[in-house]
Amino acid sequence: MIGIFDSGLGGLTVVKEVRRLLPSVDIIYLGDTARVPYGTRSPQTIRKFAEEDTKFLLHQQVDLIIVACNTVSSLALDVVRKYSSIPVFGVIDSAYKKAFKVTKSGRVGLVGTRATINSSAYKDVKLRRHASLLVPLIEEGFIKGPEIELFIKKYFLDFKRNVDTLILGCTHYPLIKDKISEFLGSTVVLVDPAEEIAHEIKKYLKNTGGTSVEEYYLTDVNKQFLQTAKMFLGKDISDKVNKTNL
Amino acid sequence: MIGIFDSGLGGLTVVKEVRRLLPSVDIIYLGDTARVPYGTRSPQTIRKFAEEDTKFLLHQQVDLIIVACNTVSSLALDVVRKYSSIPVFGVIDSAYKKAFKVTKSGRVGLVGTRATINSSAYKDVKLRRHASLLVPLIEEGFIKGPEIELFIKKYFLDFKRNVDTLILGCTHYPLIKDKISEFLGSTVVLVDPAEEIAHEIKKYLKNTGGTSVEEYYLTDVNKQFLQTAKMFLGKDISDKVNKTNL
Repeated sequence: MIGIFDSGLGGLTVVKEVRRLLPSVDIIYLGDTARVPYGTRSPQTIRKFAEEDTKFLLHQQVDLIIVACNTVSSLALDVVRKYSSIPVFGVIDSAYKKAFKVTKSGRVGLVGTRATINSSAYKDVKLRRHASLLVPLIEEGFIKGPEIELFIKKYFLDFKRNVDTLILGCTHYPLIKDKISEFLGSTVVLVDPAEEIAHEIKKYLKNTGGTSVEEYYLTDVNKQFLQTAKMFLGKDISDKVNKTNL
Repeated sequence: MIGIFDSGLGGLTVVKEVRRLLPSVDIIYLGDTARVPYGTRSPQTIRKFAEEDTKFLLHQQVDLIIVACNTVSSLALDVVRKYSSIPVFGVIDSAYKKAFKVTKSGRVGLVGTRATINSSAYKDVKLRRHASLLVPLIEEGFIKGPEIELFIKKYFLDFKRNVDTLILGCTHYPLIKDKISEFLGSTVVLVDPAEEIAHEIKKYLKNTGGTSVEEYYLTDVNKQFLQTAKMFLGKDISDKVNKTNL
């Protein structure tokens, strides 16, 4: 049983990729929708939340944890490992490795939340910028049109000029990957952590069998969250969602 | 001692108005920055958070509570009152009264968070719309320029066509009041809950003396939050901020 957690629903992009590559594995997902977003908060608070999320998944007796939240991966992977005696995979790490494999110039960029960008992780990255408004824009459904284009231009111009490879360090960005790519042009390669982590897990797992179970636990549930989940995952999970207080 | 609480830092616009009208009163402010925003969450979760916020302020022995959060005022004022034996004032209520006093056509509008708009409060309002992206835009400092203008046009066009009075039902909106007013034109009167509640408190209090104490408690503290606080309050409060876990 694979445990996957995220600050909210963005981590469902990771579930989607894992499911695509591993159709039979069993998955438990935890989204901390009562306290999302993490990316604007302090490292101390993010680490406290990460500890609580980890303990919840361990209590569900998962065999492996994927930290689907880029912010937690950047700032609190050691916390997750401290409480776990099972394997722990952080979502950015595999993207980071991949980026330095594909870059020609060595100029790799990282775009993410403010907390991710301010963290001391991923030191070899040449250019790091937050793109804070992309998360609420995407959650409000602005995945195409003049609004998202205005902000892509704002946030990605520096990358366009300075890197040849860019890590999309936030779970939400795959939803506007086409738009980002359109703006950056073909000279910048985009690395999507959701895809990379799915490949890494597939390589790691000896037993990829299972009964395709999917259980979703959210710390807050409302209609809007269920709609957002559908947008990220590409399917309705209303009947598989449980509310938990951690 | 007046206790004021909000989901985050937006409630500082209420502190600012209260301080302007009552220069001597003592104020304790609680901002739940570890769990902001409330306006996207379910009523159940908002009510739970409101209970915890209230208990914290009561423990500080305040004499009166102002619920500076429009979302809590709309969805959980009864929760705050249930736990308090002291007077409780909700920030939208006085704005609501004022709006129906000034409207000529009876066509009053309410703009706020998704949770506020979906609540069953303020039934006589003719048009209610959320403007979800204004909060992150303002917090990211987009209080002027093409970005905020694009979204004001998007969110306020219906109001421009349909109401003569509009309640700014979110603490953040006063920061872009000029821009909203510019778009709506002189035929729509804006009612700012922060101003109205300050007037109401001034009228209510028999003893407006004090030693101008200000204490700020936040559930999460980082540099960005302190900058945002300065933007809302118009002054630096770094040396008056305490962290609390509630």
